[in-house]
Amino acid sequence: MSRVKELEARLESTETLLRLFQKISRFMVRDLSLQEVLQGIVSLVGEYTKGDSCLVYLIDNNELVLCASNSPSPGTLGKVRLRMNEGLTGWVARERRLLAISREAYNDPRFKRFSDLPEDNYHAFLSAPILARGRVVGVINVQHRQTHQHTGSELELLQTVGEQVGSLLILARMDASAIEAANHVELVFPPGKPAATASAEPEFATSFDD
Amino acid sequence: MSRVKELEARLESTETLLRLFQKISRFMVRDLSLQEVLQGIVSLVGEYTKGDSCLVYLIDNNELVLCASNSPSPGTLGKVRLRMNEGLTGWVARERRLLAISREAYNDPRFKRFSDLPEDNYHAFLSAPILARGRVVGVINVQHRQTHQHTGSELELLQTVGEQVGSLLILARMDASAIEAANHVELVFPPGKPAATASAEPEFATSFDD
Repeated sequence: MSRVKELEARLESTETLLRLFQKISRFMVRDLSLQEVLQGIVSLVGEYTKGDSCLVYLIDNNELVLCASNSPSPGTLGKVRLRMNEGLTGWVARERRLLAISREAYNDPRFKRFSDLPEDNYHAFLSAPILARGRVVGVINVQHRQTHQHTGSELELLQTVGEQVGSLLILARMDASAIEAANHVELVFPPGKPAATASAEPEFATSFDD
Repeated sequence: MSRVKELEARLESTETLLRLFQKISRFMVRDLSLQEVLQGIVSLVGEYTKGDSCLVYLIDNNELVLCASNSPSPGTLGKVRLRMNEGLTGWVARERRLLAISREAYNDPRFKRFSDLPEDNYHAFLSAPILARGRVVGVINVQHRQTHQHTGSELELLQTVGEQVGSLLILARMDASAIEAANHVELVFPPGKPAATASAEPEFATSFDD
């Protein structure tokens, strides 16, 4: 491949990834239901990675519940449950680590005893914890039916999406009117605790363009 | 410039922007103080845009309070306050719109009467609202001393950073232990309200890799 073609391909892929993050960021300020947002995200991630399956599981009562899928079967969303010690997904939730397996994920010795999980039918498996303020609250998976060597961009993507989904879950709890009423400045500068860079001598606003 | 050089430059810029978003996303799950996070963000944005000044104002009691600066003067953070009808920053907060002025921002007829604000000493002015669930909670500004034609990437950057900072403010309110205890699945599928794609007949997990 010529240098120009190679650069064009890399640029296109990077720009797509960037647009993906911008779209996810936009989800954070729009007034969509969490269900719609999660479905939007698995669609975007599935599209970018060309994965055959992209799934989001969220933790409920120490179990992982399927909450979004880029190709949901009727009756599975909100119903399919995994225990935390089951399969690759459970491992990612317990270990809070990114996992990438490029081939024969279903033969991984750590997980082969779980044969009735959907993830066992795919060659390639990429999975990241969904984190909210450092706590694991779920897992996001991308699976390819065929073997697939994951790129660094795909790993980075899933890690970042895992963080963004965690944030979205928290945001969804906050009432919009409570946001307006809240004092955000106090959160940055708690009363009685001066700003780290503040001196005893306040200066004029014009002094900080020097 | 040769096609290769041009593509290399665009690729580098896009990759830098992508890393910037990934760093901001990482802020969301780390246990930093909001003050540290906001300072980290204005540093990153100032670096990417090569702006002479990058400032974050947050709303408190219908005023905009300076909360982060990539070159803070002692005593300004948490102290400098603008009214909502003052200057370009106030306009962005009121109108909740992105604003980009490439030259003589200080001569803009809408704003020239405010002469003691720091923003009045810069030629170029780029500003975006900080949004949390659709509400304006602050403003982020990038200023260049010289004239500066803002790129599409810079506009997109500031808009997205405005959304991400808004999300960070909400996240900071949520106690980490509350996050673990919370039932996130119920948030996606409220009890008594079936999943949009659910059918009356639940199927086995293995059915969704068809």
